[in-house]
Amino acid sequence: MLRSQNRILFETIKRLLRKGAAGNLRKIVNKTHAADLSIFFGFISYSDQKRIFDIIEDKEKKGLLLSELEKDTFLRLISDIPDNLIISILETMPNDDVADLIGKLPPERASSILEGMNKIDSEEVEVLLRYDDKTAGGIMNPHFVALKEDITAGEAIASLQKEYRDVEMPFYLYVIDEYGRLVGVCSLRQLVVFSSEKLLKDFMTIDVLSVQTDMDQEEVAKIVARYDILAVPVTDENNKLVGIITVDDIIDIIREEATEDILKMAGAGEEFGETKSVFLSTRNRLPWLFASCLGGILAFFIISNFEKTLSKLTFLAAFIPVIMGMGGNVGTQSSTIVVRGIATGKIIIKDIIPVVWKEVLIGSILGICYGLFIGIVAASSYSKWQLGIVVGSSVLSSMIIATFIGSLVPMLFARINIDPAVATGPFVTTAIDILSVYFYFMIAIFFFNI
Amino acid sequence: MLRSQNRILFETIKRLLRKGAAGNLRKIVNKTHAADLSIFFGFISYSDQKRIFDIIEDKEKKGLLLSELEKDTFLRLISDIPDNLIISILETMPNDDVADLIGKLPPERASSILEGMNKIDSEEVEVLLRYDDKTAGGIMNPHFVALKEDITAGEAIASLQKEYRDVEMPFYLYVIDEYGRLVGVCSLRQLVVFSSEKLLKDFMTIDVLSVQTDMDQEEVAKIVARYDILAVPVTDENNKLVGIITVDDIIDIIREEATEDILKMAGAGEEFGETKSVFLSTRNRLPWLFASCLGGILAFFIISNFEKTLSKLTFLAAFIPVIMGMGGNVGTQSSTIVVRGIATGKIIIKDIIPVVWKEVLIGSILGICYGLFIGIVAASSYSKWQLGIVVGSSVLSSMIIATFIGSLVPMLFARINIDPAVATGPFVTTAIDILSVYFYFMIAIFFFNI
Repeated sequence: MLRSQNRILFETIKRLLRKGAAGNLRKIVNKTHAADLSIFFGFISYSDQKRIFDIIEDKEKKGLLLSELEKDTFLRLISDIPDNLIISILETMPNDDVADLIGKLPPERASSILEGMNKIDSEEVEVLLRYDDKTAGGIMNPHFVALKEDITAGEAIASLQKEYRDVEMPFYLYVIDEYGRLVGVCSLRQLVVFSSEKLLKDFMTIDVLSVQTDMDQEEVAKIVARYDILAVPVTDENNKLVGIITVDDIIDIIREEATEDILKMAGAGEEFGETKSVFLSTRNRLPWLFASCLGGILAFFIISNFEKTLSKLTFLAAFIPVIMGMGGNVGTQSSTIVVRGIATGKIIIKDIIPVVWKEVLIGSILGICYGLFIGIVAASSYSKWQLGIVVGSSVLSSMIIATFIGSLVPMLFARINIDPAVATGPFVTTAIDILSVYFYFMIAIFFFNI
Repeated sequence: MLRSQNRILFETIKRLLRKGAAGNLRKIVNKTHAADLSIFFGFISYSDQKRIFDIIEDKEKKGLLLSELEKDTFLRLISDIPDNLIISILETMPNDDVADLIGKLPPERASSILEGMNKIDSEEVEVLLRYDDKTAGGIMNPHFVALKEDITAGEAIASLQKEYRDVEMPFYLYVIDEYGRLVGVCSLRQLVVFSSEKLLKDFMTIDVLSVQTDMDQEEVAKIVARYDILAVPVTDENNKLVGIITVDDIIDIIREEATEDILKMAGAGEEFGETKSVFLSTRNRLPWLFASCLGGILAFFIISNFEKTLSKLTFLAAFIPVIMGMGGNVGTQSSTIVVRGIATGKIIIKDIIPVVWKEVLIGSILGICYGLFIGIVAASSYSKWQLGIVVGSSVLSSMIIATFIGSLVPMLFARINIDPAVATGPFVTTAIDILSVYFYFMIAIFFFNI
C-alpha cells in the first residue's frame, strides 16, 4: 500500500502540474526520491512525465528514474531525449544498470548510443548485453574486488585503499589465481587479524559458493536467500570470475518473480500491466481465457449428451454450480500449494507420488465432509434420499478429481521443465470442471437407473 | 526447484540413515550447510531429524538449523533437548535470532531458558520479545554502529576499530545525539576523506530514512526494496535509535509475504503447510471452502426457482458451466491484478473508481469477444438464434459482473484496512458464480418469453 506521505506528495505534484507552477514544481520534484517519482509516473499523462523528467537537475537522479520505469513508459520517454543527453546520464550509472536500459532499446538506437559512449564503458556494456537479461550474467555487476592468491594480507590492504577506493562496500574479497579463476574468498577482518606477511592463499576460505553466468536469475535468488549471503560471485564456463550479484538486486528479482507467478497462476499474463492501456491489458488477458472458453463449450456438449436424463430429472441442473465450485476451489488450493512449494523448494519435483497422494487424501477427507453436508441439504430440500446420495458422492468425486489434477499437472510440468505456474489457473480449473460435470451425470444415471 | 546436487545429497543421507552408517553419516551431515539440512528435515521422520541434529558438532550450526526450521518441527525437536544445551547453542547466535526462537516456545520453557542465559543477553532478548514479531521491532538487530554527533572523524575511526570490531559489515554509520536520538548517517568513506579533526555533525547526512518499532514488517520490506538501501535504522517513539534491519532479513520477509498472499488468494490458509500432516492441512483448508459451499447451495436454491423454465428449456442447463467458468476466470484475473497491484504499490487504494472502471471496461471487451463466439456456437448447435443471444449476452453480463466484483471487493477491503488477499479466492468467485447464474436465467426468461 502506498504510504500516506507519498499520497500527499503525489497530490501536491499533481496540483502544481495543473497550475503550471514551474518554480515550486522544480523544487519539489528535485527533492523527491527517484523511486517515488517512478511510481508517480504510473498515474500521470505522458506530457506530465516529460515535464517532470526535464526539470530534474541531477543526472544521476534522471538515470535512477529511467532504471525504475516500466518498459513502455521508459521507451516512450527516451524516444524524445537526444542521444548526447542520454549518454551523459548513462555515464553516471553503473554499467550493469546501463546494460539493462540499453537492452530495452530498439537495436539502431542502442548501437548509436553505444557508439557515443566512452570506449571502456561501451565495451563492458556490450559484454553484459551478450547474456540473457534473466540470467546471472545479465544481472551481475562487473565491478568487484578480486585479489591475487599469492599476495600478502598487507599488500591486499594497500591494494584495497589504492585500486578499489570506488568500490564502496566490499562485502567479500574474492581471491583469484593467475588465470583469473575464482579460488577463494576472505573477509576484511581476516586481512586485519592475520600477520601482514601471510599470503592470502594460506588463510582464505576455499569453499566458495558461486554461480555460472547462464544460471536463471530465479535460481540465483534462491541461493542467495537460502544461504543468507550478501553477494554471490559469478563465473564463466572456465571458472573465471566475471562479476558479482549483490543482495539488493536479488530483492527486486524475488518480488518480480513472485508477481509473475501470481499473475500466471491467475492466467493474467506475466507482467504487471495495471499501468498499461485497456487495450494492452485486454490483449494480454484474452488468450488465457480461451482454455476456459473451450472447456466450457466441451462441458456444454457433455451435458447435451445427458439431455434425456435432464429432461426427466430437471432438478439435477441445480447442483451443477455447487459440484463445479467445490471441485474448482479445492483444485486451486492444491495447485497453488504445489506451485508455491516447488518455487520455494519445499516440494521436491521427484516426489510426484507422495505429493499427489497427500493431496488426494486431503481431497477425500474434505470431500466426505462437504459431500455429506451438501448431500443432506439436497436430500432434504427435495425429500429424495437418492438425490442426496447422488449429489453427495458427486461432490466427493469432484473434490478427489480436483486435488488429483490440481497437484499432478503442476508436478508433471515441473518435471519436464515447464514453469508449473502456467499450468494452474484456467487450464487446471477447466479440466476439473469438465470431469466433475461428467462424473456427476454418470453417477446420477447409475443411481436413478435411467 | 531443488538443485540437483541437493537431491543427490539428500538421497545419500537417506541411504546412510537407513543403513545406520554412523561414521559416514556424521561426516556428511557436518559438511552440509544448515540451510540445506533444514529443507531435508521437511522430508524425514522425527527420529531421523533427532539423529541428525544430535550428530551436528558445531553449536553455531545447530543454532542456524533451529532458526531455519518450520515452527512445528522446531517445537518437537526442542522439547527433547535439555535447557543447558539449548542455552549454549543460543549463546552462539545473534540476539534477534535468539528472540525469534524463544518467542516460539511455550511460556514456561521460554522463561526457564531466559533465566539460564547470561544477564546482558537475556535482558536484550526480553526487550526484543516485547515487540510483535511481525513488526520492525520484532525483526530488528539490536547491535549496530552508533556514533555521537560531537566526536571527530578521527575519533570515530578509532572507536570503530576498538568498540565495534565484532560488527562485521557496518553498512552505514548512524549518528546519534546525547539522548541517543538518531540525527544523521555517514559512510566509512566520508570518515576517511574528511580531515580527522572534523566533527561528524558537520558532514553527516541529516536526511535519514528510518522506521518506527511498530511498523509492519511488510511495510519495512517495501521501503528497503523501493529505495535500494542495505539497512534501515529503527527508532522508538522518542526517535531513539534502538536497532537496525538489514537487507538479508528483508529477503526472507518478501518471500514469506508473497507466499502468504498467494496462499490466501487461493483460500489455502496462510502458512505453507506442505510439510504438515494431512490432518493439519485438511483443517487449514476446510473453512475456506465453506464460502464456496454456501455459495453453491445458494446457487442451487436460485436455480430451483427457475425449475419451470428449465423443464421447458432443458438445454439451458448445458450452458451453466461455460457462463460460470468465463465469469470465474476473468474475475480471478481482476482480483489478482488488484491484490498484487496494491501489494507492490502500483495501485493506489484511493483510486477505487478508475481501477474498477478500467477492469469493467476490460471485462466488457472480453465479454463481447467471448460472448459472440460462445453465442454463435450455442445458436448453431441448437439451430436457435434466440439461444445464441441468451447465452452470448449471459457470458457478457457474467464477465462484467466478475470484473466489477473482482476489482471492487479487494479495493474496498484494502480501504478499510483488511488484507485484500483474503477477499479474493473463494469469496469473490462464489459471489460471481451466484450472480452469473441468476442473470443467465433472468435473461433467458426475458428472451424466451416464459
